[in-house]
Amino acid sequence: MRIIGVDPGLVSCGVGIVDSLSNNKGHRDDIKFIHTEVIKPPKGDLSKRLLFLHDHLVDIIKRQNAIVMAIEDQFYGKNVQTAFKTGQARGAALLAAARCGLDTTLFPPARVKLAIVGNGRASKEQVRHMVGQILNLKQLPSSLDCSDALAVAICRAFTPNLVNSA
Amino acid sequence: MRIIGVDPGLVSCGVGIVDSLSNNKGHRDDIKFIHTEVIKPPKGDLSKRLLFLHDHLVDIIKRQNAIVMAIEDQFYGKNVQTAFKTGQARGAALLAAARCGLDTTLFPPARVKLAIVGNGRASKEQVRHMVGQILNLKQLPSSLDCSDALAVAICRAFTPNLVNSA
Repeated sequence: MRIIGVDPGLVSCGVGIVDSLSNNKGHRDDIKFIHTEVIKPPKGDLSKRLLFLHDHLVDIIKRQNAIVMAIEDQFYGKNVQTAFKTGQARGAALLAAARCGLDTTLFPPARVKLAIVGNGRASKEQVRHMVGQILNLKQLPSSLDCSDALAVAICRAFTPNLVNSA
Repeated sequence: MRIIGVDPGLVSCGVGIVDSLSNNKGHRDDIKFIHTEVIKPPKGDLSKRLLFLHDHLVDIIKRQNAIVMAIEDQFYGKNVQTAFKTGQARGAALLAAARCGLDTTLFPPARVKLAIVGNGRASKEQVRHMVGQILNLKQLPSSLDCSDALAVAICRAFTPNLVNSA
């Protein structure tokens, strides 16, 4: 099962793709790193940036043959405007998934951290370190957006039996 | 100039279309009602609801030959989760506009109310009443989502020279 994890954002959107055995139950040996990148929509009109993000994600999904998407569930913060903007970017990512016929799963950030680090309050740097361990990466992802995206993809791989699809 | 106004929401998305003379400067006689409807994505997967909303908007834009989109700018509220959800729906609407090559303009809710009612804190019912007056409607829109969408379209018609496009 090829999983695309997405850490949505309009300035910088992390993408991480892994392969997982379909009956994976948390064994890290069953997960293989495939690809990671950061999408940076060019500055300019908001609607065109969303379109850039959406079309770029559709392109990656098709090129890499991803069949499921994993994405963080909720925005935990106090700034309504930031939540609004992040929501727009997440909408574009979910649309790309639906357009390509991918099932989508939402994971709360704490659940991702718990799955990867064993601590729901782990820092992004800790998550990046463990992502590198789990995927046997020779070099850690330079961007925390990449490691966050890979983390949510790994979390999906660790969760074969799902209840909360988007 | 045919304007599509959108009041985005995942449960109920208002759409209102008006025609306006391109040099309209606030003369209500220069604005003509064309169409209004509410899009209600079927319950189910979030990503599929967003896709339904997006594709339905693209269909209306093409069918009605709209050339610009007007949409409310900001979410004024205290609930981060609601802002997040509304942001997703607005993302789908902006994507539909960009997909169809429409210029998009964002208007703060208070500016829309000021343009329509003359009071930035007017109620939705007051907005609906004045939308009916401005467009010479024999019957007021039954849904406040429709009158809000028509209001933002009228606001765009009243604003020929723009600075804040999305």
